[in-house]
Amino acid sequence: MLNLRPVFLVTGALVAALGVTMLLPMLTDLLSQDAVHRADWSSFAIGATAAIFMGGGAAAASWGRIDSIGIREGFLLTGASWTALVVFAAIPLALGGLDIGYVDAFFEAMSGLTTTGSTIVTNLDDAPPGALLWRSMLQWFGGVGIIIMAFAVLPILKVGGMQIFKSEAWDTSEKFMANATNYSIALSLIYLFFTALCFVMLWGFGMPAWHALNHAMTTVATGGFSTRDASLGAFLTVGRAPLDLVVTVFMIIGSLPFGIFLVAILRGAWKRLFTDSQIRFFITIVTVLTVLMMFRVLNIFDDIDPFTAFRLAIFNVVSIMTGTGYATTDYNAWGPFAVGFFFCIMFIGGCAGSTSCGMKVFRFQVALAALVVYAKRLAHPNGVFVARYNQRPLTDDVFVSVLSFFFVYFATFASLAVVLAGLGLDTLTAISSAGTAIANVGPGLGPIVGPSGNFASLPDAAKLAMSAGMLLGRLEFFTILVILSPAFWRG
Amino acid sequence: MLNLRPVFLVTGALVAALGVTMLLPMLTDLLSQDAVHRADWSSFAIGATAAIFMGGGAAAASWGRIDSIGIREGFLLTGASWTALVVFAAIPLALGGLDIGYVDAFFEAMSGLTTTGSTIVTNLDDAPPGALLWRSMLQWFGGVGIIIMAFAVLPILKVGGMQIFKSEAWDTSEKFMANATNYSIALSLIYLFFTALCFVMLWGFGMPAWHALNHAMTTVATGGFSTRDASLGAFLTVGRAPLDLVVTVFMIIGSLPFGIFLVAILRGAWKRLFTDSQIRFFITIVTVLTVLMMFRVLNIFDDIDPFTAFRLAIFNVVSIMTGTGYATTDYNAWGPFAVGFFFCIMFIGGCAGSTSCGMKVFRFQVALAALVVYAKRLAHPNGVFVARYNQRPLTDDVFVSVLSFFFVYFATFASLAVVLAGLGLDTLTAISSAGTAIANVGPGLGPIVGPSGNFASLPDAAKLAMSAGMLLGRLEFFTILVILSPAFWRG
Ligand SMILES: [K+]
Ligand SMILES: [K+]
Repeated sequence: MLNLRPVFLVTGALVAALGVTMLLPMLTDLLSQDAVHRADWSSFAIGATAAIFMGGGAAAASWGRIDSIGIREGFLLTGASWTALVVFAAIPLALGGLDIGYVDAFFEAMSGLTTTGSTIVTNLDDAPPGALLWRSMLQWFGGVGIIIMAFAVLPILKVGGMQIFKSEAWDTSEKFMANATNYSIALSLIYLFFTALCFVMLWGFGMPAWHALNHAMTTVATGGFSTRDASLGAFLTVGRAPLDLVVTVFMIIGSLPFGIFLVAILRGAWKRLFTDSQIRFFITIVTVLTVLMMFRVLNIFDDIDPFTAFRLAIFNVVSIMTGTGYATTDYNAWGPFAVGFFFCIMFIGGCAGSTSCGMKVFRFQVALAALVVYAKRLAHPNGVFVARYNQRPLTDDVFVSVLSFFFVYFATFASLAVVLAGLGLDTLTAISSAGTAIANVGPGLGPIVGPSGNFASLPDAAKLAMSAGMLLGRLEFFTILVILSPAFWRG
Repeated sequence: MLNLRPVFLVTGALVAALGVTMLLPMLTDLLSQDAVHRADWSSFAIGATAAIFMGGGAAAASWGRIDSIGIREGFLLTGASWTALVVFAAIPLALGGLDIGYVDAFFEAMSGLTTTGSTIVTNLDDAPPGALLWRSMLQWFGGVGIIIMAFAVLPILKVGGMQIFKSEAWDTSEKFMANATNYSIALSLIYLFFTALCFVMLWGFGMPAWHALNHAMTTVATGGFSTRDASLGAFLTVGRAPLDLVVTVFMIIGSLPFGIFLVAILRGAWKRLFTDSQIRFFITIVTVLTVLMMFRVLNIFDDIDPFTAFRLAIFNVVSIMTGTGYATTDYNAWGPFAVGFFFCIMFIGGCAGSTSCGMKVFRFQVALAALVVYAKRLAHPNGVFVARYNQRPLTDDVFVSVLSFFFVYFATFASLAVVLAGLGLDTLTAISSAGTAIANVGPGLGPIVGPSGNFASLPDAAKLAMSAGMLLGRLEFFTILVILSPAFWRG
């Protein structure tokens, strides 16, 4: 029998907590100089009231001690809490001065909490500050939420090969419950530290404090929401400090496994930062792709110096590959190779245990290891071959998990693209919107949804389909798909 | 130690046999009414001489009894023989009246033998008959070649999950050698029978005998080369018999597992045609997709009757899904949904053991079974779940094979698309050319390489990259990739 009480309790508590955080954008609106923006405070007041009362009510009604949570309850809790948070986070956006309906607000909230960064707001430059702050906060919450989940929840649920990150220390359910809370707090503090550092550096390098605060939150979350229509490009004027390089550094930090930071701090094992297989592979990919794109940029623009080419290359490679999705320039002008290149690398993602999205580099490592073992077995059917990852042997069980993940990834991508095309989007918009949603990147390709466009003009059904794609991508597909399988509800 | 003697012997013998068959198009040219076309006979005479002498020489130099062939020799033989056949098949095309260079001829020969059907010939209507016949013959040879390989070679090599089709009867190497020859002859006779039947029906329904012969060969081979620039559409005039429905039936027959036909005839087990899991799944997919596209066509064209909509839908669904690639109409005009739909279904393919291409439906069945078992294991970590295919249990070994296949498929597709974009092709042309090459379909999308275009204008490097993609796709990737892995050459 499924025990739904802990699911309601935790989901309700999280929704109520979200309601409390709505007081911050409410205050921001109240402090605004602009009378129209000031009036926007009420939307957050209403949203906060709804979230606190309904979330708190659900939690209170199911109050009690939680001794342990079963596997199936874990899946349900994950799916229910993310969905409920989006439903309530959308309320103040729908009521407020952005002048959008609930479907648009739902899309924006989903894009925020999943750290996707696709936006339907057409005029960010004149948007009320409360709404802008709320969008940044949602991405920031989403970032820390996924870090905690990747560390404490997904390895237990064995989703998509994440079991290889399961710590041996957590062999009992009780130990896990006790450690999970402490570790979650520690991870959140590390995350807060990097956000603060990013803010200080952006501010120090000349970005106005308000914009630095918002961009710090969405950078470390590899989210990509901006406070300006021109995205980060609005702050890159000639003679300014290279803010894009600061952002690049923190996008990379946001894409590293936060669990390794924790181990480094707790046990002084700083060497792990340089020996961890996943980090090395990630940095290698970034380096190779940056060099490749740098040559391309030098090739396309005759009058560019190597350093500018390097800045353009590394910023865009890191922004797209980690799934942040900031734009400093419209790379559609870099020719078809660049467009195809960026389309492909957006699926790569960062490290597992980071805020970044996409398939995650460890899955490519495991898949490559599976292929090498498979090729060896084909050539030498009687040999015995074992692949290893971070010194541990990889079993067929892990191979099936990871390879299934790839299969589901592409199947979902293709299905979503066909659905979007069926809803009337042109081919390029449909394919790139599907990809950007499930990879949680943000911008698509082409004139409508490309780096200089937005998603406002899409039909409502397309926005909801993309929202479903974002949630599936963020929760690594199986967390949601398992709940939808009949076997889940049996026994 | 690798024993290369059998590899040279069989490859040489196959090349020499190919040379003998070049006498047929040579005769066709000699019998032509047109003096210019008649002069083309010499290109086939030269090609035949080269193939017979060089192939025969290699075979004679390595002559001797072959007792058994090892696994690695099997891989080498497969890769070497397909490549050598393409190299020699291209010679008469390069020398002849098509007025193309060797790279174009190589592309065309590769497209023929792999039953892809992409063409660089810009004026089929005025091409010499020998060259047209040779193109059709290459696809016909490629079709029977892949049927024999899928029955006798790939299950032994365990490529991409094909081991589930391994017959238990062949448990010793000697038995296998004896049976393989008889079964290969039987399969070829079945193939010949269907080709003859297709020819008779096309001819009987009013297609001129010459065109009926060529189209019969390329239909049963699910190849898609035509004798006319307008492809099959050139023969579909108002008041004519529905030739497209005849072709549809034989494209479906070409996509069914020929091993099942053999079992049906040898053991009288005709019921297997209706109970085989793969056939049922294939027919179900065709039915569902046809109904879906029929509604779409009815929706787009207001003045169309349901029967015409059905004809348009089933012909195009079967043509693209089985990877035949004939065109009767340019479906680019059917809107973005249809374009995205056809792009996706071209990867599906037909049944393993048929002439058709793509991923093959059994792999989707195995992948779905793997996902269901995986979802059950996620929800109930302590349960024991086993998937079955045609009553036999599927092991993790098969899951890894099949899922690896999908992974390599998409990785090759994405890499080829990026390479083609890097060679200057626009995004849509690059992506669709990459897909059509590795899925061995034929036409791409868009104005350049779409159903009404051809591949002549692509740069040479793009033609060679696509040729490599066709070979990889036709030989199920691993047959080639294994040879390229260092482990293959060790031990
Ligand atoms: K993002
Ligand atoms: K074809």
